[in-house]
Amino acid sequence: MKTISLLGATGSVGNQTIDIIREHPAEFQLAAFSVGKNIELARKLIIEFKPQLVSVQESSDCTLLKAEFPKTKFTFGNEGLIEVAVFEKSDILVNAVLGSVGLHPTLQAIECGKVIAIANKETLVTAGHLVIEAAKRNNVPLLPVDSEHSAIFQALQGEMDKNIERLILTASGGSFRDRTRAELKDVTVEQALHHPNWSMGAKITIDSATMMNKGLEVIEAHWLFGVPFEKIDVLLHKESIIHSMVEFHDSSIIAQLGTPDMRVPIQYALTYPDRLPLNSAKKLNLASVGKLHFQEMDLKRFRCLDFAYHAGNKGGTMPTVLNAANEAAVAAFLKGKIRFLQIEELIEQALSKHQVIDNPSLAMIEEVDKEARQFVHSLL
Amino acid sequence: MKTISLLGATGSVGNQTIDIIREHPAEFQLAAFSVGKNIELARKLIIEFKPQLVSVQESSDCTLLKAEFPKTKFTFGNEGLIEVAVFEKSDILVNAVLGSVGLHPTLQAIECGKVIAIANKETLVTAGHLVIEAAKRNNVPLLPVDSEHSAIFQALQGEMDKNIERLILTASGGSFRDRTRAELKDVTVEQALHHPNWSMGAKITIDSATMMNKGLEVIEAHWLFGVPFEKIDVLLHKESIIHSMVEFHDSSIIAQLGTPDMRVPIQYALTYPDRLPLNSAKKLNLASVGKLHFQEMDLKRFRCLDFAYHAGNKGGTMPTVLNAANEAAVAAFLKGKIRFLQIEELIEQALSKHQVIDNPSLAMIEEVDKEARQFVHSLL
Repeated sequence: MKTISLLGATGSVGNQTIDIIREHPAEFQLAAFSVGKNIELARKLIIEFKPQLVSVQESSDCTLLKAEFPKTKFTFGNEGLIEVAVFEKSDILVNAVLGSVGLHPTLQAIECGKVIAIANKETLVTAGHLVIEAAKRNNVPLLPVDSEHSAIFQALQGEMDKNIERLILTASGGSFRDRTRAELKDVTVEQALHHPNWSMGAKITIDSATMMNKGLEVIEAHWLFGVPFEKIDVLLHKESIIHSMVEFHDSSIIAQLGTPDMRVPIQYALTYPDRLPLNSAKKLNLASVGKLHFQEMDLKRFRCLDFAYHAGNKGGTMPTVLNAANEAAVAAFLKGKIRFLQIEELIEQALSKHQVIDNPSLAMIEEVDKEARQFVHSLL
Repeated sequence: MKTISLLGATGSVGNQTIDIIREHPAEFQLAAFSVGKNIELARKLIIEFKPQLVSVQESSDCTLLKAEFPKTKFTFGNEGLIEVAVFEKSDILVNAVLGSVGLHPTLQAIECGKVIAIANKETLVTAGHLVIEAAKRNNVPLLPVDSEHSAIFQALQGEMDKNIERLILTASGGSFRDRTRAELKDVTVEQALHHPNWSMGAKITIDSATMMNKGLEVIEAHWLFGVPFEKIDVLLHKESIIHSMVEFHDSSIIAQLGTPDMRVPIQYALTYPDRLPLNSAKKLNLASVGKLHFQEMDLKRFRCLDFAYHAGNKGGTMPTVLNAANEAAVAAFLKGKIRFLQIEELIEQALSKHQVIDNPSLAMIEEVDKEARQFVHSLL
């Protein structure tokens, strides 16, 4: 029996993590979780799973729930996220919150020796060197939950890192894969939110449409697998069947495949190094799929991916700016304040204005993160 | 430094094994090898690699070479194959001979504790239970060299056998993939020898055209990986890029990919569990390949595959008959004695006539093998 703390229980990955826990009651127990403002769903989860600790975003919701569920401990805000992350009875932290808010709780959980299942890519993008250093120092496994990184992690089982020639991340191309840049000028939020293969949250779906999601994943892969950026490639693969690959120096490639279903990588992180049946998952039938397509990635078409390689190579605080500016710009797009192509314009301006600071501390990263967001807001 | 005995040095796999040894002189040494009648090539290999022991097919060639190379030990015939296989200074036996003649030397090498790199699939087809039992008893690794089995073996690294849901062997379809059965009536030997993807020996190329090669591979996979026949599938994949796959019970699939180049699986068997660079191999570029195709296997179109599942499921001596009848029929086809579709007719008759003997001894297998060949010859 593994005991789980879950940050972001009501988001897309959080929901699917709960599906996995529900499907294997003898294997997993949900001991603590956090939600944002979806108190209705929190109530249902408390009744179903009887967790010992729950964190909400607002103090008022915390007070409300305390009265309703006297046997459960409640907490709130950013401190609440940390309490859930380090909850003493949990073996594993599943970090499925959105954005760099997941950084502090992750670092704290690592210091407490928790196994980390990480779906919150912004944490690694914005402060990868701190997270990796802390994980190594505490001998804590960082288990990827993103389908691409889980694919690479699975492909690397039984292999030696020294033999890696190249990581190949696959990209579906997102909602606007088949549009030219000219055709992107007037796309709507609704169109951007329509991903061809994956059902995900709003922010990551927009990031897929701009290809920033793949850019963040490239930086995430760099940190998780210790591979330099020139050995990380991105390949367009519209079916999202091959989730990613590793090429070794003998030219052999190991790939992980499956129907697009986030529960598979989530469950693998929870069962690692073992696997458990996932009977509700749809099996891949390649004969009925018929064809898989592959295409080179065009960095002029997908400028956000180019920005990510640039920021990753610059290092230091540059990826923090990339991520913060992107979060601010995507939020503005989702609110209808800017048009789609302005997302990348804002990020480009934030990056070009920033003077990189090498090997930044956590405080420095938080400062730079704040400034980059303010800068984007000042341009709206 | 690993020291190698190589059976079948002048065949296709033997040749490519020598390429690998040549490319890594600090890693591998060719201590002993066997050839058939290609004495000219044997001479060149003796001069280049200075082996301590060489076996040839004919006694007269043995006498000839002894006079030419007084520092090398020579031997001949079936006993010679065994001497090479068990050569005391060798760590690894690469068994790359053709047909069930490889069985005895393999069993002897296993008893001597040699690591076995097995390209000789007929050995496992005809006496899999004996080979596997001996390997387990002597704690000897059986490393697959066939590209499909190497792919599965690579996919299984770091995984637990209990989690295997299905093995998926890919099949290019061979020379006549796109022909109907009616169009197979008058095909020539020359047409059958033209494989679309792989450059291989004559027998295996004909076996690819009849799909018997995949049938033998299904039985080989059954023994190598201990998976029942109902969990071994074959998928048509005309590009031969995905070399095979393993599906686990969480619905995750691990695959091994690469350009069709036998040196990759050969080298993996020699370097296992490590890998070495293979700079001369052509890297796979999926973007330039563009598309991969998959199609269900039609057992009515490819009857030899159906026969192999049937023989595998019957077990006992039935796979011995399958293999022996096939070897005799293919030899007859290559000599122009029968037409292409008669290969499967002869095999079908041999199978239907045979009364299966369960758990046969080596002597029994050899007897049944001989009888099946004689039966096929009697029908020519």
